[in-house]
Amino acid sequence: MENININELKNHYDDEVIINGFVDNIRNLQWVQFIILRDNTGKVQVTIEKSEESNKEMVELIDSLPLESTVKIIGKLVESPKVKLNGMEIIPSSIEVTSKSDEELPFNFKDLQSVNLDTRLDYRFIDLRNDKNSFMFQVQSMLVRYMREYLYNNNFTEIHTPKIIGAASESGADVFEVKYFDRVAYLAQSPQFYKQMAMASGFNRIFEVAPCFRAENSNTSRHATEFTSFDVELSYIDSYDDVMNLEAEMLTYALEKTNEVYGDKIKEVFGTEIVVPKLPFPSMKLADVYKELEVRYGYKVDDVEKTDLTTEAERLCYRLSQEMFNHEFLFVTDFPAEKRAFYHMRDENGRLMGYDLLWRGTEITTGAQREHRYDEIVKNAKEKGLDVDVKFYLEFFKYGCPPHGGFAIGVDRLTMLLLGISSVKETQFLFRGPNRLNP
Amino acid sequence: MENININELKNHYDDEVIINGFVDNIRNLQWVQFIILRDNTGKVQVTIEKSEESNKEMVELIDSLPLESTVKIIGKLVESPKVKLNGMEIIPSSIEVTSKSDEELPFNFKDLQSVNLDTRLDYRFIDLRNDKNSFMFQVQSMLVRYMREYLYNNNFTEIHTPKIIGAASESGADVFEVKYFDRVAYLAQSPQFYKQMAMASGFNRIFEVAPCFRAENSNTSRHATEFTSFDVELSYIDSYDDVMNLEAEMLTYALEKTNEVYGDKIKEVFGTEIVVPKLPFPSMKLADVYKELEVRYGYKVDDVEKTDLTTEAERLCYRLSQEMFNHEFLFVTDFPAEKRAFYHMRDENGRLMGYDLLWRGTEITTGAQREHRYDEIVKNAKEKGLDVDVKFYLEFFKYGCPPHGGFAIGVDRLTMLLLGISSVKETQFLFRGPNRLNP
Repeated sequence: MENININELKNHYDDEVIINGFVDNIRNLQWVQFIILRDNTGKVQVTIEKSEESNKEMVELIDSLPLESTVKIIGKLVESPKVKLNGMEIIPSSIEVTSKSDEELPFNFKDLQSVNLDTRLDYRFIDLRNDKNSFMFQVQSMLVRYMREYLYNNNFTEIHTPKIIGAASESGADVFEVKYFDRVAYLAQSPQFYKQMAMASGFNRIFEVAPCFRAENSNTSRHATEFTSFDVELSYIDSYDDVMNLEAEMLTYALEKTNEVYGDKIKEVFGTEIVVPKLPFPSMKLADVYKELEVRYGYKVDDVEKTDLTTEAERLCYRLSQEMFNHEFLFVTDFPAEKRAFYHMRDENGRLMGYDLLWRGTEITTGAQREHRYDEIVKNAKEKGLDVDVKFYLEFFKYGCPPHGGFAIGVDRLTMLLLGISSVKETQFLFRGPNRLNP
Repeated sequence: MENININELKNHYDDEVIINGFVDNIRNLQWVQFIILRDNTGKVQVTIEKSEESNKEMVELIDSLPLESTVKIIGKLVESPKVKLNGMEIIPSSIEVTSKSDEELPFNFKDLQSVNLDTRLDYRFIDLRNDKNSFMFQVQSMLVRYMREYLYNNNFTEIHTPKIIGAASESGADVFEVKYFDRVAYLAQSPQFYKQMAMASGFNRIFEVAPCFRAENSNTSRHATEFTSFDVELSYIDSYDDVMNLEAEMLTYALEKTNEVYGDKIKEVFGTEIVVPKLPFPSMKLADVYKELEVRYGYKVDDVEKTDLTTEAERLCYRLSQEMFNHEFLFVTDFPAEKRAFYHMRDENGRLMGYDLLWRGTEITTGAQREHRYDEIVKNAKEKGLDVDVKFYLEFFKYGCPPHGGFAIGVDRLTMLLLGISSVKETQFLFRGPNRLNP
């Protein structure tokens, strides 16, 4: 007999079942004990009649059992309309304590409103027992699963690029140093250079889901020193439109699938709805965005700020995109090239061949066609004073390299926006920031 | 019109097609030019009649085009039984050079036998253009895809645990140090502690595919300072048999699926066959393995070495498992507990509740039931003198933690064994070792 998840019990009425889980609650009445058992799929009531002679041992065991202990229960599942919790109960024939919770919990994980976030993160293993938090990671896993599935279906290959690198990479700033035997190495800020190496190697279409590291000493709801990045790169594109289209299709596919599986439960648990987007996603030029924000909402910024989206402009774009296009997503294009990484392609007029993608008022992606022409990429690198640091990378373009482009999405940020959570500190399994390295 | 992969051309006879790829070869004869175009799915011949007036520009372009440049070709696909390569050719109407290879290649990537491995790794982006190497990563991606799929189908959640950690973790030895703002941090050797944290959090069944870091100054065909680990952990097990069964089923599923998709091509390209294993996998006790190796093959070692499998014993186990069980895999159990990590469970007689899994003569996994009882895990940690270092980890077991176990598989090593490749230096996208940090 196999262990059954609580959300699958409804298929097993009148069967003898094995269930395992945490003791979520005990009500010890004069004639009866009610145990609420919890696993990561739900909760169920276990009912012990005290008058039954054969229950004596169980009753004594439950009398002294601390909450949050784990138990293995064998019993009969019966339909009981009078039981509020799912209309069912288990009448146990045996209860085995598989672990004992011997300490008082550091806080009540069922009501996190009043608990300080740092305390929660100190005891993240308790914090994650909260129903919402536990479910959050099931949703994240599902979302990533279907992003990958879309790519598999479109002939993408998954690669695993090194995170320890010999040169300080993209910009030199904000890089963690590693003591690597008798020399210094660095932690990769992104797989950018290696995604492009795969293109120079003829890999055609690749993706990677892996940690990125940023030594930024900043403390916002959107930043972490380590985060999970979903990176995609593809060759033989005609323009960055191909990259935008692929990203839009991938997200639509993943949101649709996730909605099918978890849409109702997300609504119930988080009070937010998955809106499966329509294709194609709307797109606006940066200058037009600022024009519309001013006309519609009176939002003005100095011209010097209009070289990029301000946080407030990002926020307002949610409203803008909904009003103009009835859409939650918005591609923004035509950023000035000088503010962007040297590996982004520019056209003959210096216009950037790239984009940002906003969702629900937050930037989730920077994507672009990359510069694959050796002379041009060398020139771009020199302009930023990086040509020596990235010498190994420039080599990739000497021996033929197809036109290509790609994008990256932060998985933690995506989860945050999907579920309406306020910070990546809560959507990372274990948040890492300048002042947070434990547990 | 969309770009078509070369292996899909057979569905497009007499169509006008777009294909993109590298110029693999050019034969420039008196009356005709043959171009062999290569993408990551195959090769195809492009034929240009020099006598056709309308081909004049193309002919001139091909006359001066270096091999390994990339081109975009529009043309008509025709069936041509006389063409050895797939019995087809493309009659182009336009050829666009999308990138030029301006330098002589550092080596001939089509014949790697005579090329020094270090040179190959220095120019890995060229080395990966080799048909075998390119295909190897498609196989690896497929294998990992189906390992994940098996787990998704069995209610596993994917998690992403931090790689920068505050304490030196499992053993203190062989750990890379990171300069983390004004303090020292470390790179995770494995997600072990955090996989178990997920169990204490009630996640039930999780997996992670992520880099691990080991500061081992050793240079073997099986070791790297960074590698991709496929980690699995599950709760509510009755014994480590449950862990072994799950691993065997997962591998069987993934090998079966990979064989369906790529079995024939693997045979053709690598000359090795995927043998889809039978369930259950055979299992032997360590002492019995040494007994059989002595009886059957005269292999003797000192008793002091019999606390673990020697490299030679691992190698001989391939033959042993085939002879005894007609099987390529072999579980080995009953290792002495004192040689194993403190978090592995022991029974009341000190017997280790864990195993190694060998495939084709190499260990691919160490798995075990974990010690989830607080008093026991504290005792084990103290015995190894680790109780202070792993204090944060011991906390996980204070507040109830279900019985659980798990295992880890090195993806690079698995690829190596699947395809009969001699070293992980070749199966990692970019190998990292004590003397290898570039590109």
